Amino acid sequence: MYKLYDFRPSGNGYKVRLLLTQLGIPYTYIEKDILKRETRTPEFLAINPNGRIPVLELEPGLHLSESNAILIYFSEGTAYLPSDQLERAYVMQWLFFEQYSHEPYIATSRFLMHYADKSDHHQAMIQQKREPGYAALGVLEKRLAEHPFLVSDRYTIADIALYAYTHVADEGGFSLEVYPGIRAWIERVAAQPNHLTIQETGGRDSPG
Amino acid sequence: MYKLYDFRPSGNGYKVRLLLTQLGIPYTYIEKDILKRETRTPEFLAINPNGRIPVLELEPGLHLSESNAILIYFSEGTAYLPSDQLERAYVMQWLFFEQYSHEPYIATSRFLMHYADKSDHHQAMIQQKREPGYAALGVLEKRLAEHPFLVSDRYTIADIALYAYTHVADEGGFSLEVYPGIRAWIERVAAQPNHLTIQETGGRDSPG
Repeated sequence: MYKLYDFRPSGNGYKVRLLLTQLGIPYTYIEKDILKRETRTPEFLAINPNGRIPVLELEPGLHLSESNAILIYFSEGTAYLPSDQLERAYVMQWLFFEQYSHEPYIATSRFLMHYADKSDHHQAMIQQKREPGYAALGVLEKRLAEHPFLVSDRYTIADIALYAYTHVADEGGFSLEVYPGIRAWIERVAAQPNHLTIQETGGRDSPG
Repeated sequence: MYKLYDFRPSGNGYKVRLLLTQLGIPYTYIEKDILKRETRTPEFLAINPNGRIPVLELEPGLHLSESNAILIYFSEGTAYLPSDQLERAYVMQWLFFEQYSHEPYIATSRFLMHYADKSDHHQAMIQQKREPGYAALGVLEKRLAEHPFLVSDRYTIADIALYAYTHVADEGGFSLEVYPGIRAWIERVAAQPNHLTIQETGGRDSPG
């Protein structure tokens, strides 16, 4: 069985949990507390030298990291990743947008506000993330004001990837009040069959 | 003909120029000076709401952004993107690693040192990027100390994506002295057929 190394509050981990659950693929869930630096141990660095969750064990000794790479791997050949070349290209575009222009602001603000200490340095970082974070939400709104989903008007891994941190953007201090397109999309994503919330592991728990 | 909106010093743009050149795909090159905010005009935001280069015009009115998404689009079905599912997964893993754990430190330091003003704020940012930048180089070295290329011992878009800013890491103040695996790999990448340097546009220049 697949093993997912993950940290419960992580939106990046949640993306993988959500897709695997919707695909009906069982996995063992293994919690690694990043606040206790459990992803920086020699044992963990052996499975991901970059020291980050999520990591998926495909088989013993064979591991895949980077949440969006894991999404692509499992969605290939399913309805969650289009087969059309241009549609695929736009899915990829949104996945890279998410990691470069969205996650470092929306997700990191949430982390700093809820899981890091309240130092002046962290407070300054949160403030610096306001403008680029809202810029990313503006890009999302521009698409979602006119379309039900991010690519080709149907639910794909692009929606899973962007939903993960957008639907909890308020936990990072971002208001979605002026983004009606995003808010309606959040409801559409949550209404998909076999949805899983970010609080759920979706897998069979394992002590480690 | 394809049109590439790009900024000459950009490593992200260079990735696309390099792949298109190696694939023998002609394109018109259109310079957009990000220092003059030419990517934040209403005209440019209409082709990429995220306001960043590179953007590739596939046909009039149809645009694709995100450098690594463009690499995937053009390499599909070629030797630069493996067809094997697991090999593809590792290519994707490196592409997301590049955008999340490498580019924001290695590339951004280079930008701040060469293209931004010398304010205290920018100097502090450069210093903050040292540790995560070297961590990313350490992850690369771990792979390249034992393998000639990033995936499956042959040249793929993963190498193109990581080469773009790694081979000019010194311009951001990062020394590659203690990374012999990276240095040998840089030479191997530069020795590939139809290589293009970061100073070259590779396309037919257009005034705009």
